[in-house]
Amino acid sequence: MAIITLTTDFGTRDGYVGAVKGVIARLAPDTTIVDIAHDIPRGDVAHAAWVVSTSCQEFPHGTIHVVVVDPGVGGARHEVIVKVVGHWFVGPDNGAFAYVAERVSDAWAIESAAFRAKRVNRTFHGRDIFAPAAAAIARGVDVTSAGPMVRLTGALPWGTRARGQGRIVHVDHYGNLVTDLPPGEAGDAVTVAGHTLPIVGTYEDVAPGELLAYVGSARTIEIAVRDGRADARLDVPRGTVVLPAAVGEPYR
Amino acid sequence: MAIITLTTDFGTRDGYVGAVKGVIARLAPDTTIVDIAHDIPRGDVAHAAWVVSTSCQEFPHGTIHVVVVDPGVGGARHEVIVKVVGHWFVGPDNGAFAYVAERVSDAWAIESAAFRAKRVNRTFHGRDIFAPAAAAIARGVDVTSAGPMVRLTGALPWGTRARGQGRIVHVDHYGNLVTDLPPGEAGDAVTVAGHTLPIVGTYEDVAPGELLAYVGSARTIEIAVRDGRADARLDVPRGTVVLPAAVGEPYR
Amino acid sequence: MAIITLTTDFGTRDGYVGAVKGVIARLAPDTTIVDIAHDIPRGDVAHAAWVVSTSCQEFPHGTIHVVVVDPGVGGARHEVIVKVVGHWFVGPDNGAFAYVAERVSDAWAIESAAFRAKRVNRTFHGRDIFAPAAAAIARGVDVTSAGPMVRLTGALPWGTRARGQGRIVHVDHYGNLVTDLPPGEAGDAVTVAGHTLPIVGTYEDVAPGELLAYVGSARTIEIAVRDGRADARLDVPRGTVVLPAAVGEPYR
Repeated sequence: MAIITLTTDFGTRDGYVGAVKGVIARLAPDTTIVDIAHDIPRGDVAHAAWVVSTSCQEFPHGTIHVVVVDPGVGGARHEVIVKVVGHWFVGPDNGAFAYVAERVSDAWAIESAAFRAKRVNRTFHGRDIFAPAAAAIARGVDVTSAGPMVRLTGALPWGTRARGQGRIVHVDHYGNLVTDLPPGEAGDAVTVAGHTLPIVGTYEDVAPGELLAYVGSARTIEIAVRDGRADARLDVPRGTVVLPAAVGEPYR
Repeated sequence: MAIITLTTDFGTRDGYVGAVKGVIARLAPDTTIVDIAHDIPRGDVAHAAWVVSTSCQEFPHGTIHVVVVDPGVGGARHEVIVKVVGHWFVGPDNGAFAYVAERVSDAWAIESAAFRAKRVNRTFHGRDIFAPAAAAIARGVDVTSAGPMVRLTGALPWGTRARGQGRIVHVDHYGNLVTDLPPGEAGDAVTVAGHTLPIVGTYEDVAPGELLAYVGSARTIEIAVRDGRADARLDVPRGTVVLPAAVGEPYR
Repeated sequence: MAIITLTTDFGTRDGYVGAVKGVIARLAPDTTIVDIAHDIPRGDVAHAAWVVSTSCQEFPHGTIHVVVVDPGVGGARHEVIVKVVGHWFVGPDNGAFAYVAERVSDAWAIESAAFRAKRVNRTFHGRDIFAPAAAAIARGVDVTSAGPMVRLTGALPWGTRARGQGRIVHVDHYGNLVTDLPPGEAGDAVTVAGHTLPIVGTYEDVAPGELLAYVGSARTIEIAVRDGRADARLDVPRGTVVLPAAVGEPYR
């Protein structure tokens, strides 16, 4: 039984999520639909990219991930199916697949009638293109028949990471600042926004209200405030650079 | 395997959604439960009516839609099962079915013990009446045994649409203003709140920050602001009239 | 087919819920995953305790309830599996099981490799300990092999209720104040925050905007404002005492 996951900025107060699920239930009845997140901030493709990148890898091979955060719907960006080491991704090519497709990937445009609704509304491709495409994959339709192979062009504002330097790439629900700096490049401490923070094990290693750095769940360095919000404390945007530091530097 | 969808104003921070799902899982174990939306604004029956109307039609025939936005719970309104062209709807008769039941429908009061919990709490009919009723339908219990046939009395504040005239009937998560005006009656442009807007194809057909009108996903005219919120820009209530206009009129 | 329910404060805008679901889908593919609530207020263990206590009982026996509101993640609290009259509960021992485990319960620490991920991140036990443990139970692994039996130590701020006296233990999505006072101990009226309220049947028994007390869906006394919010009206914290009163006392 195929699994289709859904990541969108549709919210949880409208019928958009329901319409997508209805199409899948109708076209691929034996599929299990799994909600990942529907409260991606409106139009925030980079947020979606991180969410998908950090959750999809836990699913079994063959899982189909539909990712629709699509401010350019009906415009020039392509609709694509992307294959990455045994996982399928379906959505607009706008940067949402930038992290997952860093690994080897193949991509196809979604053009064939078997992968789209008969009538496609220009402002709801989630329902009329991406849900039917995911259902077609779930039913076992040959993906190479979806359309021509394409090269992904979507990119994130902060581009590719240079070695020895991280960026804040995600601010989560708890106000934690997630970076893309691997622990192996961080050493014992990191500097961010003028603060030098030794890398500790978990929240309880510092006093309530203190800033801390630690290896987060994405296996990259993360910045938090124990029982507080690091986003409010530091007030720095995504893309902010995070650098390795020596523990000897003052911790504040 | 039957599908039961859920549309409520229960929110996603309490146990109410879980209780409803538990009852269904217990009484109709082979059923697939699908969340449509649980963040319907509190008590906003008209919002629920639109959400259900625009998402239910995508589901396969036989789907059971539970809709519980029920400010009058425990009071005089009826609890009903409604059958509309192959779909079932279950909930209070308070207007939530006004759109779907415009088409031919049959309705039954939920009175029989087989369709209700043994003990019915007066403030949680979702758990004690509507979930058991949906589970009974899913198990194949004959709906004509639920109770007497009734006539739906629930209505929406803006009543029925007159030909050649639309109303704003829904404000979505993105701040888009959804009308009930079919494109065939709109012509090339619409007037709303003193603005005349030509009907374009999609968001990218206007500049960022501009108002636009287009054929929305419900196949009715919709008003939006590209990369912005039309509800904040126009600040008009639901029920506001939207009229066809000639393109020659000034666009502002 | 086993059922695993999820109750967390992970929110619905990040990949955390998806990661947990992915682990379960991978390790126990035949399981049905049911979302109870992911918008538990951040770190609010008492809120989670009430949500789980009032929804879990509706599920069929054998259901596995994963409850992760875990501000002390990576710290000293135990990770546990709790068995309570045919239901399984999995999560940190921090008070989230205080209500459900008032009944006879057995608890085991989660220590065995079969119940945990190979690599456990110190800030995301939901993904690396509780999801694998739930999947192991779902697959039928013998729970007594998870680890040593332990005594639950997690407790709620307001301790145990004394007979004839209730406390506000939950404030729900609608602003209703839920108490733990059983109707049998309340008599005809209750006093809270200087107001004496006769116990009525449902919202429509008072005028719009009025305070009311009634038997809520948890079968305890609940305080609400018809078409309004009791939390805003009374502005009293959880833990506030609610006492039985005589109807003769003035109703305001």
